[in-house]
Amino acid sequence: MGVEERREQLIAVALGLFSHRSPEDVSIDEIAEAAGISRPLVYHYFPGKQQLYEAALRRAADELTARFVEPHEGPLGARLLRVMERYFAFVEEHGPGFSALMRGGPAIGSTRTSALIDGVRQAAYTQILSHLDVDAHAPSPRLELVVRSWISLAETTALLWLDGRRVPRAELERQLVHDFAALAAVSAAYDQEMAQVVRRMLADEPADGMFADLVGRLLELPQPV
Amino acid sequence: MGVEERREQLIAVALGLFSHRSPEDVSIDEIAEAAGISRPLVYHYFPGKQQLYEAALRRAADELTARFVEPHEGPLGARLLRVMERYFAFVEEHGPGFSALMRGGPAIGSTRTSALIDGVRQAAYTQILSHLDVDAHAPSPRLELVVRSWISLAETTALLWLDGRRVPRAELERQLVHDFAALAAVSAAYDQEMAQVVRRMLADEPADGMFADLVGRLLELPQPV
Repeated sequence: MGVEERREQLIAVALGLFSHRSPEDVSIDEIAEAAGISRPLVYHYFPGKQQLYEAALRRAADELTARFVEPHEGPLGARLLRVMERYFAFVEEHGPGFSALMRGGPAIGSTRTSALIDGVRQAAYTQILSHLDVDAHAPSPRLELVVRSWISLAETTALLWLDGRRVPRAELERQLVHDFAALAAVSAAYDQEMAQVVRRMLADEPADGMFADLVGRLLELPQPV
Repeated sequence: MGVEERREQLIAVALGLFSHRSPEDVSIDEIAEAAGISRPLVYHYFPGKQQLYEAALRRAADELTARFVEPHEGPLGARLLRVMERYFAFVEEHGPGFSALMRGGPAIGSTRTSALIDGVRQAAYTQILSHLDVDAHAPSPRLELVVRSWISLAETTALLWLDGRRVPRAELERQLVHDFAALAAVSAAYDQEMAQVVRRMLADEPADGMFADLVGRLLELPQPV
């Protein structure tokens, strides 16, 4: 194998192991064994454990970022639901690796890995603004708050789901789409600019779409006495 | 001064400095100078920078945790609003210290500080369940998700607010109370147990209370076509 090929193989092997156990618990010896090469040879391709982990992490971050990309077509709720489905598929696939990454364990909590995670969050943020037809360089402070805090909500939800998987994944995917609409709607009550964004979100929604579904459900709630 | 008194003084001085600049940027020399003692004397009371930082952090965590405690009286929305007011007062008071703590910078991202932060989150979680009259040892998985993910939403909102303070604090305090109700309501649409919790939340709400306000605002939203 060539150098690049071998590096690719080691990254794939590491990500495979991280999908079953936390990166902190996976040794270079195990990666070498799973790749069918000697431990010294691993160090020929990566100067140390940290470098191999960071390369694997960068690969995972790139893959996750790619899943955020969604055509600008059709109702917004349905677009967001498709992204959520791909997001949770990634979370399920990478399991402990995703968990360790997002919780920032001692082995991976370096400045460089933090920057990678921030990059993924920023990519999610930019994608959402683009679907809302908002210039990513000049969102209103309230819209920025809604989008970024919803992204952290989605992360926490995914982490909690991984810890026991006691709620069906598909339910949480739908719920997060509803959460986005609900958080935007709450903010819209305080701000004209947010109200316009919510009106645009709802304008293209079909009567049987994700957001119509939410409004219907909320209307069924008991009213305060 | 006695040993305990001096330690208390150094912790207070450190927290004072952290409220203006990130802990990473504050040296032991500065803490010594602000306390009016020599650098070697600081090390007499704390073996190293990390120990002093952790003691300061523990003090801040205890103080924040104490602010979560709220009498079990009156409408739930108003209770949560009072906690949010105290929470944002803490965030404003501690500024860069809060930010550095929650973002887990290199200087403070140790296993012990992570455990402290988790302790604060757990305290918030337990308090909320107690106000919802739910046994903290056996919440439904969906209720746990709503409460824990809302706590992370509140954290992210506070961190984003600190970064520029472009939205009035009081608006975000109210908004987070509304967000809690909205997230609970979305989850209630999927789950009978959550629906009961939401019914209990709304049962004691006055017609001019926080949750009635939210429902009214949501009803004014444009309906999907």
